[in-house]
Amino acid sequence: MSVSIGDVARLAGVSRTTVSHVISGKRPVSDAVEGRVRSAMTELGYAPSRMAQNLASGTTRTMGLLVPDIGNGFFADIAKGVERTAIAGGYNMLLCNTGWNLERELFYLETLKSRAVDGVVYAAGVPAPTSQLTGLLGGLPVVAVDEELDDVAQVTVVSDNRVGGRLAAEHLAALGHTRALVAGATPGLASSRLRVEGFGDAWLERTGRAPLVAEGTFEVDSGYRLAQEHLGALRDGEITAVFCLNDMVAFGLMQALSENGIDVPGSCSVVGFDDVFAARHVGPGLTTVRQDAVGLGEVAARLLLEILENGEARPQGVRVLPVDLVERRSTGGVRGRGACHG
Amino acid sequence: MSVSIGDVARLAGVSRTTVSHVISGKRPVSDAVEGRVRSAMTELGYAPSRMAQNLASGTTRTMGLLVPDIGNGFFADIAKGVERTAIAGGYNMLLCNTGWNLERELFYLETLKSRAVDGVVYAAGVPAPTSQLTGLLGGLPVVAVDEELDDVAQVTVVSDNRVGGRLAAEHLAALGHTRALVAGATPGLASSRLRVEGFGDAWLERTGRAPLVAEGTFEVDSGYRLAQEHLGALRDGEITAVFCLNDMVAFGLMQALSENGIDVPGSCSVVGFDDVFAARHVGPGLTTVRQDAVGLGEVAARLLLEILENGEARPQGVRVLPVDLVERRSTGGVRGRGACHG
Repeated sequence: MSVSIGDVARLAGVSRTTVSHVISGKRPVSDAVEGRVRSAMTELGYAPSRMAQNLASGTTRTMGLLVPDIGNGFFADIAKGVERTAIAGGYNMLLCNTGWNLERELFYLETLKSRAVDGVVYAAGVPAPTSQLTGLLGGLPVVAVDEELDDVAQVTVVSDNRVGGRLAAEHLAALGHTRALVAGATPGLASSRLRVEGFGDAWLERTGRAPLVAEGTFEVDSGYRLAQEHLGALRDGEITAVFCLNDMVAFGLMQALSENGIDVPGSCSVVGFDDVFAARHVGPGLTTVRQDAVGLGEVAARLLLEILENGEARPQGVRVLPVDLVERRSTGGVRGRGACHG
Repeated sequence: MSVSIGDVARLAGVSRTTVSHVISGKRPVSDAVEGRVRSAMTELGYAPSRMAQNLASGTTRTMGLLVPDIGNGFFADIAKGVERTAIAGGYNMLLCNTGWNLERELFYLETLKSRAVDGVVYAAGVPAPTSQLTGLLGGLPVVAVDEELDDVAQVTVVSDNRVGGRLAAEHLAALGHTRALVAGATPGLASSRLRVEGFGDAWLERTGRAPLVAEGTFEVDSGYRLAQEHLGALRDGEITAVFCLNDMVAFGLMQALSENGIDVPGSCSVVGFDDVFAARHVGPGLTTVRQDAVGLGEVAARLLLEILENGEARPQGVRVLPVDLVERRSTGGVRGRGACHG
């Protein structure tokens, strides 16, 4: 840490600026001067820090990532995917947690822009109006992940949310369920809307009924609250299956069911969405629609790198990653139809 | 977004710099000029962005947070605590995930310093030599959280790791266990050393034996690998209890035990450390030493705010938060000593 660019400049008999030009390679320097600088660097054992190189070259080699809830393993996995890809590409990642809060999303976007990150991977929790985002972001390259942002992002990477909803419905219908609740539908989020529509369409095809759709958020508390609100119907067998719009909602819902003595899957089958760490590694296991969260992050970061490295020839459109259903022990057949309601 | 500081300056007939001075209040401006600027701002509907105010005042009102693994709910909770406190204090938080990697820790510290965050909350995963950190950080205020950094941080906030280890040992000894494995001991981490020592001291007192200590990391894979390495001893009843140095290690270990037909807690009791989301919300439940992770983050951020707001009168020393043991279903009595080995 002790040898500075000033030491090199003094020994080589040139200005600090000239040393910077040699390090960055951005401005031509005569062979003789470059030779003196490189000799001085060698003699002093000076290794230019990567940060100094970045400052000299005028880029930050840093990408920002905005996610709504880093405590949700799904977004932690997206962050891992983005970070892994960024680092492999010679970039770093600054992570902002926006807490499903529009004001914070806007503030963090402004913060990232003012810090001159080279680009942003943006998992929106509360998408702002396009006009507002466009004004805020100016020309900053943006890749949307998980949630669509039509006119703001150069490219969008999402899972196949509609198919995911369909898979959940088909699984529960195949188990004989006909009375379903969809828990945590969040107005304004395309990911929520597509999951609800995919589930609803398939449910109608298979059972001839529409599911009951309960609005909420994508957080644990929301699932807990919705279970309490529908406790009567869950106890009476008017609802025998719940499709939770993400795993956090499912955890909250199952906690409330457990506290109220409603057995999963004996009295109520539960399906989540995401397949986060907690669904995979612990306990009886949550049947859930698996998203490739790390893959979403990797693809998003790779597309951002392409935009940053290739300038105008930008990738465009929406990339949709497939999903699948992971069957675990939170789902089972309907118990004694018309007979016992434990 | 359309009215700029330049528009205000033009209408008021002053320079952009003068407008900045009015906004920041940092340099005196004559009442007449200030009046013209404020009238122009009102007329144009100009609201200075918070970022513009920050740039004008020379502070960023942003703190950095470094954590080793954002996918570990413990660090996600620390991040929530730091962020909640930062926001309440008018600050924002930029989060860096260092991946238990020294090089990345150093690079991110350098990145945060060059972005002129006002201070850093630093959860070190691989503590660097003090001399290296001091050189890197210069005068940047640092609060260490979770892992001690003696001479670099103004103040350190940790849980009582030694007592946590002791609580785990006393719980397992009280259940009749005498043959314990400590899984995931990580050289160089004070948090790991203190947990191992606390466990070992209490185990010796209670059972007259020293536990077997197996080195690893604080990650899921480490727990999985250590279970496989000790599979014989676990099968033979030479080990009937495992103290995992964090919950991630416990999840990995329990997964390997499950895959190999070793029942928890029937054949092997497992205690974790942290009480992360997955330990709390799902499944049979992991007995674990609860850390107040959100509280650690809150206290750390509050101390950093005190340092930032009060300048020289800085808080110092080490703050130690209490821990407690949460009993769940991963621990139980020793099965048929000397008799059946299922």
